[in-house]
Order: sequence, then C-alpha cells, then structure tokens
Amino acid sequence: RIDGQRLWDSLMDMAKIGPGVAGGNNRQTLTDEDAEGRALFQSWCEAAGCTIGLDQMGNMFAQREGTDPDALPVYVGSHLDTQPTGGKYDGVLGVLGGLEILRTLNDLDVKTKHPIVVTNFTNEEGTRFAPAMLSSGVFAGIHTQDWAYAKTDAAGKTFGDELKRIGWRGDEEVGARKMHAFFELHIEQGPILEAEGKAIGVVTHGQGLSWTQVTVMGKDSHTGSTPMPMRKNAGLGMARILEKVDEIAWSHAPHAVGAAGHIDVYPNSRNVIPGKVVFTVDFRSPDLSVIEDMEARLKVEAQKICDDMGLEIAFEKVGGFDPVAFDEGCVNAVRNAAERLGYSHMDLISGAGHDACWVNRVAPTAMVMCPCVDGLSHNEAEEISKEWATASADVLLHAVVETAQI
Amino acid sequence: RIDGQRLWDSLMDMAKIGPGVAGGNNRQTLTDEDAEGRALFQSWCEAAGCTIGLDQMGNMFAQREGTDPDALPVYVGSHLDTQPTGGKYDGVLGVLGGLEILRTLNDLDVKTKHPIVVTNFTNEEGTRFAPAMLSSGVFAGIHTQDWAYAKTDAAGKTFGDELKRIGWRGDEEVGARKMHAFFELHIEQGPILEAEGKAIGVVTHGQGLSWTQVTVMGKDSHTGSTPMPMRKNAGLGMARILEKVDEIAWSHAPHAVGAAGHIDVYPNSRNVIPGKVVFTVDFRSPDLSVIEDMEARLKVEAQKICDDMGLEIAFEKVGGFDPVAFDEGCVNAVRNAAERLGYSHMDLISGAGHDACWVNRVAPTAMVMCPCVDGLSHNEAEEISKEWATASADVLLHAVVETAQI
Ligand SMILES: NC(=O)NCCC(=O)O
Ligand SMILES: NC(=O)NCCC(=O)O
Repeated sequence: RIDGQRLWDSLMDMAKIGPGVAGGNNRQTLTDEDAEGRALFQSWCEAAGCTIGLDQMGNMFAQREGTDPDALPVYVGSHLDTQPTGGKYDGVLGVLGGLEILRTLNDLDVKTKHPIVVTNFTNEEGTRFAPAMLSSGVFAGIHTQDWAYAKTDAAGKTFGDELKRIGWRGDEEVGARKMHAFFELHIEQGPILEAEGKAIGVVTHGQGLSWTQVTVMGKDSHTGSTPMPMRKNAGLGMARILEKVDEIAWSHAPHAVGAAGHIDVYPNSRNVIPGKVVFTVDFRSPDLSVIEDMEARLKVEAQKICDDMGLEIAFEKVGGFDPVAFDEGCVNAVRNAAERLGYSHMDLISGAGHDACWVNRVAPTAMVMCPCVDGLSHNEAEEISKEWATASADVLLHAVVETAQI
Repeated sequence: RIDGQRLWDSLMDMAKIGPGVAGGNNRQTLTDEDAEGRALFQSWCEAAGCTIGLDQMGNMFAQREGTDPDALPVYVGSHLDTQPTGGKYDGVLGVLGGLEILRTLNDLDVKTKHPIVVTNFTNEEGTRFAPAMLSSGVFAGIHTQDWAYAKTDAAGKTFGDELKRIGWRGDEEVGARKMHAFFELHIEQGPILEAEGKAIGVVTHGQGLSWTQVTVMGKDSHTGSTPMPMRKNAGLGMARILEKVDEIAWSHAPHAVGAAGHIDVYPNSRNVIPGKVVFTVDFRSPDLSVIEDMEARLKVEAQKICDDMGLEIAFEKVGGFDPVAFDEGCVNAVRNAAERLGYSHMDLISGAGHDACWVNRVAPTAMVMCPCVDGLSHNEAEEISKEWATASADVLLHAVVETAQI
C-alpha cells in the first residue's frame, strides 16, 4: 500500500507553485510556474534515485531501474500543467501518484523486472496552445514536432520558443522510447463515481473530441449611429450559433456534449458593433459517427445563420481525437487490482481527453480514476479526498507491479 | 472660407500618430500615442499664436484673444482620442477644424469681439475607461472628478494615474471656464447625409444612450466530462440575452438601436464551460421613454433566461445620457451659415454621443456634421472626402464668427 499522507503532502507542495486566485492553480504550460513545478518534480525524482530523461517536446521521464536489462519499462504518469483557473489534482495526481509508487517500492525495497518510468507530458490542457495533449500526441506520432513547435498562444508566442525560454527543451528524440505498457491515474472530472458511490473507475474507453474554431466576420461600425437594418453584427451571429451548438449536442444526449469555452470579440469596445468573433466549439461523444454528425450540422446551421445575416464564416479544426478503447490486458490489471485491494469499482468511459488516449496508439494502455467532489473540474474549487487519492494510487501501484513483474 | 488643403494635411499628419493596422488609428485615451497627438496639436496652436490651458481632466484649451476683454469666449472642438480600431476623422475633424478656423482668421487678420477657444476633450470614446464623454461630463458637472479618476481600464489602471503618467494633467479647475457658446463639428458616423445627398447636417438633437454592464455567473466546469443537464453555462446565457437585446431594439425600430460591443468570457479556455461572462448592452433612442422601456425589458428578460438556466445575473449602469435638444440660437447659426455659403443641408438627430451633448447642459451649444462614406465609423476604414471636410469647416467658421462677432 502507498503512503497516502506522503502523496497528499506532495500534492499540496506542488499546489504552492502557480497558485490561482480562488484556492486552485494557474500553472499553465511553458510559463515560469510550469518550469518551477518541473524543477520540484525533478528534485523529488532524483531524491527517489531516478535518472531523468527529457525529450525535445519537454516531456519528462523519471526512471527506476528494473532487474532485467532487456525488459521495456512500464510507464505511468500524466501532466503537471493546469488550466488558467484550474484545480490542484487534474493531471498532478497522476504524476505524483506515479512518484508515490516509486517511493513505496523503494521503502519496501521491492525490485521489478521491468523498469518503471514516471512521465510528465507537456501541454496536456491545450488552453495556451491548442490542441490539448499536444506532446503525448507528438510522442505517439499523431502530430509532427515542427507542427507542434509552430503553435502560438494568444500573444503570438510559439510553443517552440517558449519551451526553449523556460529551459525545458531536451535532446531526446520524441517517441523514441518504447513502452511495455502505460497507466494513467486521473481524477474523473465528472460526477459518475461519486453518484454511484464507487472509489475506483476502471476506464475502458474514452470519448472522442472535436474542436472547431469558428470565425464570424461582420463589419465593425458605430453602435449608436448605424441603423438596425444596416448592421453586420458578428456578435449576434456568434450568439445564434451558440444556441445551435447547444441544440445539436442535446439532440444526441446523453451520448454527446457541446459548448464553446473560448470566445474572443473584436474590437471588443462598448460602442463598436463586433466586426469579428472567434470562438471554439467543443463537441464530444463516445461514438465517432455522432461527432461527425455534430460537426457537419454545425457547419450547415452556422453557415445558414451567417448567410441570413450577411455575415461571413470560416471553420478550422484545431483539435480532435477519435473515441478510444483501452487495452484489455491493462484494463484487466486495473480491475484486478481494485478487486484484490477490496475497493468498490465500476467500468467508466472517460469524458475528458487524456495523454493515455494518444499513448494507447503506441503501447498497451489503461487508466485508473478516482471521484472528485460534485464532478467539478477545470475550476479552482476542484476537490478530492485524501482517501480517494490513496485508494486510486494503491490501485495504480498494484496494476503497475503486476505488469512490471516482481 | 477655410483652407481645405491645409485642414486635410493636418488631418493626415495627426493620423500618423498611433496608426492602426488597417489604415485607421489606434490612439486610445491616455496612451503614449494620445500624449504625442496632444503635443502635436499644442505645437500647431502655439504656432497660430494661441495660449494653451490644461485642466485637471487633461482637457486642452487653445485660446485666440478677442477684442473685448469682458466677452466670454466662443468654444469649438471635439476629441483627439480614438477607438482601438478607429478612423482618422471621428473627433479629430472637430478639433483640427477648430484650429483651421483660427488659422483662417489669422490669415485674413480678422479680429472677433469674443475670444475663440479650440478644445480637445479627454476620453470621449469611453473604450478604455467607461463611460464615453467622461471629461466633458466632468466639465459639465455631471460626474465628479474623483469618480472619473477612479475609473479603471481592463488592466486595472486608473484614469487618474494614467493621466498623470502621460504628463497631461493640468492645474486648472475643471468646468471653471464659462462659455458664450460651444460648437462641435463631427462626422455623421451614420448613413443619412450621404443617402440624402446633403453636404451639411444641422444637428438639432442627439439621441440618448444607456450602457448596462451585465455579469452572468454560472459554474466553470469541464466541457467534456460535465453532463449536459449539470451545466451552468454562462456563455450560453449570454448568447440568449444577446438575442433578446436585438429583439427589444427591433421592437422600437427605427426609433431605437441595441447591441453589445464588449464581451469578456472567463476563464476563456476551450475546454472550460464559461463560469462568468461580462458584457455591455448599448441601447439608444431619441426618446427617453423608449430607452427606459428597453432597459426595463432587458432586466426582466435576462433575469428570466438566467433563472431558467440556474445562472446568476447582475446589472450595472456604466454609462448613459438622456436625449439632447441643442440650443435654438446656435442651431440657427449653423443652419444660416450653411444657407449663406450655399451648401446643401438638412436637420439631423445625432445617433452617437458627443462632448457637445454634455456641454449643452452648461452653455448654448450646437453641432455641424459632414457625411462619411457608407455611414461607416468606429472602423479603420472610416472615410470622408476633402470636399466634405472643407464644406463643414466652412460652416463651422461662419457659425462661430457670427456668434463671436467681428
Ligand atoms: N483531462 C483534461 O482535462 N484534459 C484536457 C483535454 C480535454 O479537454 O479533455
Ligand atoms: N462620437 C462617438 O463615437 N462618441 C462615442 C460615444 C458614443 O458611443 O456615442
């Protein structure tokens, strides 16, 4: 069993870096705070006797050696970056939970055949640089490194430049590492486990995602002196499209969700009719055909709205992944561990995207989830109990040790 | 007659300061560019033999002496600040048109009984610091100076600090000056004069305005893992309210307009359901009862939308002025001047707010307007012809000289 108090203390120590404004965290990817968080994690890993690898995407790999020099490592991990107003556990639990299993194995002086590597993937959140899970995506060969380096934030800074600036661009070729298996521990970020009273989610699938960036173009003009019939109000066009997004998602409920989290209005002046609005529609479903249907209907409906209003519209797909089925063997290892340890558990479809979704393309992969209070995440008030953290890290330990073999 | 080419050259020289990205200007109030524009205007006024006054709101007053030491000055002017993506003429024509009449009187060696003062009012646009016409409002005793100093921009900087920082806070008590009359020349910013083929708008009234800042509060949560029925999407609430704003304004058309130019979404991350949206609704009408009806209906309808969606809502009035009737004597001076000079003209209600609307509370006031291409303003593509600028400054000259007496 892992040391729940030690894990909790490490979570609280990490949360001191990049504090938010309401009890959570703002440790966005490739900021100074991200660099500070990485340094703390590295110091803990070194103290646990690990060697640290760093690849050209800034992905970190802390390795505990195994007894068989020919055995591929078992990987565990998640991400240390947060939303601008994020919680203390989203991603962090998976990285520090991984560290905790190494510390526990050290305490017990247990050697495994396969090495175990704890991973911190860069820019999982995708807020500062879309898409989400950018660096696990490059690791899995989904994106090229050049494409990822060229991604820009709202201030026009590139991922490549910012990675270099914070001093965490490594030399290792991205994706060169081969994995025996990958396990990611993560908070659920949804309400199901808590509602069902289960301590452990055995994640069998992940729903797919589609991010469509929509640009509506009207004509900036004076809010006072432009007669109503002469207006080309891109803000009103956006409003009508958002209503459609909601309608389209509901038409597939409970097998789909949809919303826009990102909306930028130009020139954003009280007395200027918006000439341009850029926003991102997030559609998700465990069913690929549903995602495709929602994407297609969005384009048709939004085009119609804009045609009726004399507005122009453009669509750009800025992120997406297909629904995922995790590896049966790894899923079983998670389910068996929960069973053996006597924790209540249930199978779960992940509502969020995770680094595990991309790694699953190149290695046998599964996920462990723990509940979070009110299903709330991507909110500074995100909360879990120490017991939930402990139970889920215990399950992670047992699934990993079973796979890495004593 | 004024020198149209000289006026045009000055307009083009001023437009070099704070250039925009698309041929217009970004010379927002109390920026370094604003300071540079002020310095250029001051140097021109000094070259024309004026003495410069500067009050504690940064309002500038360039005085050409009259022959009667007891006669109150006739004031002319407008503002040099622009929208973030503004045109070269909005406000600037009124200030530099005022300067041009002084230059013309100098050329002709004409003395007037009353002094003539050309004014540049600070922060007319209200984009960086709401409300619009802030400093003419303090001048007219509508707002207190302390209230104005405490206004903050989006970065949290105060008006008072920024005015000091750019070096244009004067010593003069605001509003201490008494005016014999005030004339403001401005581009129409709407389509009527061009459509009617008239060179001159004789502004008899100005429509009133109401700015209501609306804050919709939901709950930030994950766009993927939060089930549709559990969402409190402040962005969707905003979208529904914008549709109502449009409906309410249309219900009074053509005697009202309504839109939201300013919309800020929090935390503005692609995978976070907006927990808060702040936006400003701009309603206008020449009829006060219509404005009051629109404000009241907005509150009822928006509250209903939010109640239905489990959202919270708050309203704050951040700007507004009642419809204005300008001074009959000054209006006649403008109409007579247009008539005498043989320019086609028509009476007009101003769709936009102007410094003249506040000054009208403390001095006999009127406005002259010239057409602008396609009625377009608050857009970098705002355009007027040299002929329109010349004709309208000619009318300003004659109205002012009639009032200031030779
Ligand atoms: N787990 C998580 O929030 N990942 C970010 C990608 C997503 O939006 O699902
Ligand atoms: N003239 C002008 O655009 N003034 C700004 C105040 C308003 O929005 O009407």
